Amino acid sequence: MPAPNESADPSPRAMWYPEREDITIYGILAALSDPTRLEMVRRLAEQTEQCPFDFLSMGSKQNLTHHFKVLREAGLIKARYEGRNKIIWLRRDLIDDMFPGLLDGVLKAVSASPLRV
Amino acid sequence: MPAPNESADPSPRAMWYPEREDITIYGILAALSDPTRLEMVRRLAEQTEQCPFDFLSMGSKQNLTHHFKVLREAGLIKARYEGRNKIIWLRRDLIDDMFPGLLDGVLKAVSASPLRV
Repeated sequence: MPAPNESADPSPRAMWYPEREDITIYGILAALSDPTRLEMVRRLAEQTEQCPFDFLSMGSKQNLTHHFKVLREAGLIKARYEGRNKIIWLRRDLIDDMFPGLLDGVLKAVSASPLRV
Repeated sequence: MPAPNESADPSPRAMWYPEREDITIYGILAALSDPTRLEMVRRLAEQTEQCPFDFLSMGSKQNLTHHFKVLREAGLIKARYEGRNKIIWLRRDLIDDMFPGLLDGVLKAVSASPLRV
């Protein structure tokens, strides 16, 4: 649920996350069905935490912001600020708990079949 | 590739299938990101071959035809006619060969998290 006063607080640091019961396997599969997002998740699975700048080779800042939003709203990633730096991570424990085998299967398939990003 | 004379041959039995190199993990994930289609694939994985009528509890004939088309064009299913009966099956060997672990992971997650169809 968005913060009630979100419109009064346009801080870019206010981020919306789905409740656990709103995270679905369909939303996750849809979020992963894009080359850029699947590669983002693959990299986040390899290296626990990353800064958005680490992904700049994959697209424009605007484009990446959109993809991070889709991943976040599907329940796949979270972010926090450390001073001025944003840190992003994969919600591996949550997804593995809700949908056991899903990320393992997708990542195994990805590692066997190079992505075209 | 559609049959060259497809427009001259409106036979409902002419079906298009993607070439192997056109089957992508993104297309498969997108096809699976729908409750009805994921449930269809789950059932086809349980029982090798089925008749489209077996799925009629899941939606209208028109609706199911659309979903079968999406699954077929993603590379996930094939169909053949036996007399007047259409038989559908999951291309499990092909998908397991191209994207090892993918279907296993998705189906494992599905079995742990009841679908809402």
